[in-house]
Amino acid sequence: MVVGVSAPGLASLAALTKAVMDLGAAGVMIAPPGGLKGDDAIVTYFQNCVEAISNVPFALQDFPQANGLFIPVPVIERVVATCPTCVMLKHEDWPGLDKITAVRAREKHGMRRLSILSGNCGIFLPFELARGADGAMTGYAYPEMLVDVCRLIAAGRLSEAHDLFDAHLPLVRYEQQPGAGLAVRKYVLWRRGVLKSDAQRKPGPRVSRETAAEIDFMLERLERATALRTVRAAS
Amino acid sequence: MVVGVSAPGLASLAALTKAVMDLGAAGVMIAPPGGLKGDDAIVTYFQNCVEAISNVPFALQDFPQANGLFIPVPVIERVVATCPTCVMLKHEDWPGLDKITAVRAREKHGMRRLSILSGNCGIFLPFELARGADGAMTGYAYPEMLVDVCRLIAAGRLSEAHDLFDAHLPLVRYEQQPGAGLAVRKYVLWRRGVLKSDAQRKPGPRVSRETAAEIDFMLERLERATALRTVRAAS
Amino acid sequence: MVVGVSAPGLASLAALTKAVMDLGAAGVMIAPPGGLKGDDAIVTYFQNCVEAISNVPFALQDFPQANGLFIPVPVIERVVATCPTCVMLKHEDWPGLDKITAVRAREKHGMRRLSILSGNCGIFLPFELARGADGAMTGYAYPEMLVDVCRLIAAGRLSEAHDLFDAHLPLVRYEQQPGAGLAVRKYVLWRRGVLKSDAQRKPGPRVSRETAAEIDFMLERLERATALRTVRAAS
Amino acid sequence: MVVGVSAPGLASLAALTKAVMDLGAAGVMIAPPGGLKGDDAIVTYFQNCVEAISNVPFALQDFPQANGLFIPVPVIERVVATCPTCVMLKHEDWPGLDKITAVRAREKHGMRRLSILSGNCGIFLPFELARGADGAMTGYAYPEMLVDVCRLIAAGRLSEAHDLFDAHLPLVRYEQQPGAGLAVRKYVLWRRGVLKSDAQRKPGPRVSRETAAEIDFMLERLERATALRTVRAAS
Repeated sequence: MVVGVSAPGLASLAALTKAVMDLGAAGVMIAPPGGLKGDDAIVTYFQNCVEAISNVPFALQDFPQANGLFIPVPVIERVVATCPTCVMLKHEDWPGLDKITAVRAREKHGMRRLSILSGNCGIFLPFELARGADGAMTGYAYPEMLVDVCRLIAAGRLSEAHDLFDAHLPLVRYEQQPGAGLAVRKYVLWRRGVLKSDAQRKPGPRVSRETAAEIDFMLERLERATALRTVRAAS
Repeated sequence: MVVGVSAPGLASLAALTKAVMDLGAAGVMIAPPGGLKGDDAIVTYFQNCVEAISNVPFALQDFPQANGLFIPVPVIERVVATCPTCVMLKHEDWPGLDKITAVRAREKHGMRRLSILSGNCGIFLPFELARGADGAMTGYAYPEMLVDVCRLIAAGRLSEAHDLFDAHLPLVRYEQQPGAGLAVRKYVLWRRGVLKSDAQRKPGPRVSRETAAEIDFMLERLERATALRTVRAAS
Repeated sequence: MVVGVSAPGLASLAALTKAVMDLGAAGVMIAPPGGLKGDDAIVTYFQNCVEAISNVPFALQDFPQANGLFIPVPVIERVVATCPTCVMLKHEDWPGLDKITAVRAREKHGMRRLSILSGNCGIFLPFELARGADGAMTGYAYPEMLVDVCRLIAAGRLSEAHDLFDAHLPLVRYEQQPGAGLAVRKYVLWRRGVLKSDAQRKPGPRVSRETAAEIDFMLERLERATALRTVRAAS
Repeated sequence: MVVGVSAPGLASLAALTKAVMDLGAAGVMIAPPGGLKGDDAIVTYFQNCVEAISNVPFALQDFPQANGLFIPVPVIERVVATCPTCVMLKHEDWPGLDKITAVRAREKHGMRRLSILSGNCGIFLPFELARGADGAMTGYAYPEMLVDVCRLIAAGRLSEAHDLFDAHLPLVRYEQQPGAGLAVRKYVLWRRGVLKSDAQRKPGPRVSRETAAEIDFMLERLERATALRTVRAAS
């Protein structure tokens, strides 16, 4: 288990890291703050983090859609070279497929190997795995699909992986909508019987009546396509 | 034909409008500049535009991903009420399905009816049409799919519309990547024999070798799924 | 004492509010998060806050430079009308002088009177007070100047207020630099003997050698101009 | 005369450059577009510009407040090293004093010397000149002050330079307000008899009645302080 500890100040980042490691986390995940100025500032930021959290292993979270900060591949390479405890790249840049290829290419020229896990609801998952990602670290209402796609790609069964993934893609696309996605995921998990309610804490929205109908429509099609025996919560 | 004339100043916006209308355009499309401050400023901006372009019909382009400006439904309603030449909504907000529903709901309470055309490569097209959009105004390398989906939805053949659309969704998702999408579209159009080259003007990128291979893979699957007789440029 | 409790979620905002009120705060200050979409969303946000913090009095912090969110005067008026516990406006919009005038004008048309305190190191303080601000709530290394300017303006001694303020303006301008200002303030407070060190917690920077020399130069000029008997830390 | 030719595409940037050079410009000024991703992308952008405008000398405009793009000193050095026609730095980063010092320091280690002209209404002008700027390239309603400060600093008459500058600082601060400043400048130029009207093209605002009164107040104080014989437009 890896816990996100990104925080505006290094003191709170370090305190949160200590708290979650004491509770048994395997490591932490850090997204740099949005205002960093230029490549050098990003490298320095991670070096300061390491000074603050000492020998705790961490994932570099590359998530420009959230913080507006682009992290070039040479910067990732410099962080890896100077921070031995940087062991994972959480890959969420978009578009980002060529970035996975570029990171893996650097490893052939001496860069230490990183684990790469992708995000964004896995909307490019089969291609990300083929490009060199080790797996996904993302939310989706059918996590078993993410697992199965990883297994199929690992076994070289490319066509089957895409068949399975593409059957889910209409829903993945729908759940990946920024700001609206979590309400969709909770609704599906409630429909599947996993959650007792699809409510979010305020000010999180609930899906609209029309959205619920569209999700129901997609679930029916998904069930037919994959013959999933979905446990339904509602009668 | 509707031509985008968004420009930082009203003088250049008006000059561009005159030029394209003289060349035969049916109207123009205007996205407000990103820095507008609050609801009233957006309404005033469109009123200033109308003063500048007089009786030329225009589409209100709602595209927060490009200009960082959210346009609430009450603002759209105020623009429509005070600008008789506002005849269309170019719908590109994301997530945006409930916005179409909300605009159509206002029309039941007296708002003048607008034509709504959706964008974003049509990645939610069948749902957008069912919510009340009149069509799409977007780029995608198989425009015939967009046309067919509109026809099928209009004819009430919902299931077939989604079957056709979902066969294209892997490629739509791929082409919708911001910054990378145009290179993808040009590559597909070149593969289909429509373009003689997939080159973009500098500094537009070309697809990488890996990207080209992924597109080829998706085209093969798409062809099998839809039995499209794609004319191929390459041997 | 008013404590800033802005937080991404309402739960943590409420927990922080309870903690500081238990410790004796007179109220809290809330800046809405940057991503709010349109006027209505800002009003709703503050209504949700009130639901979360109940009857605790709060200041509406209007600080677009920090969160990218413009708050129009009609929105401030709606928050005041629907949130009886909104008792203060922390005014930091820039440019913002006409906004003070506009808020005070609304009060002549029935809006409940708000306390207005200005920020931004007080770089427009005498004008802000003349426009209707009740005081300042900002950092500056000579807080006694802020107090004296408020007193002089309140006593109608406009010319003296500006004379005093303008003598400080070179340093105010220097301290108001975003990102660099806190290091400047700490350096001056250390020079004045208030602080034992001008160090900031990492990753806060220290002033450069050249910056220190420029501040020293301004302090000498300020001392001559105001005949302040500055206690100096250094020999 | 140096003309700003920044444009979204290289084709229009090149066309505009040709037009102004044909009209007699000495060179052009280019601010990179806001969306560039990382240090390398900025360097490549300027190299593409040089390919587009050939041997036309250009100024690198460093203006993060306008385009959200930070340009680190090592990037400036790489542009200078690979683009022989880059002959000037338009310095508008804020805070930016240490950046001037850093650029000049690089020149002692082999970087080709650049002309540096500062912007932002000259709000730090005397310090910028002392740090190594060659002059200012900015708007202010009393350009003669900018000239005089440059002369005084060049002559080593530091104290006089600051005395003159500080007398103008209240107005400089007022005119430097983003979005509002141009209306202020036009109003002062009209008061000085330089312009026949202070109107701006739509949607540029006019100064409010309260703003006009504040400017008049500052002009009176400035006149007394500097014994400027201001020609007044109004009776």
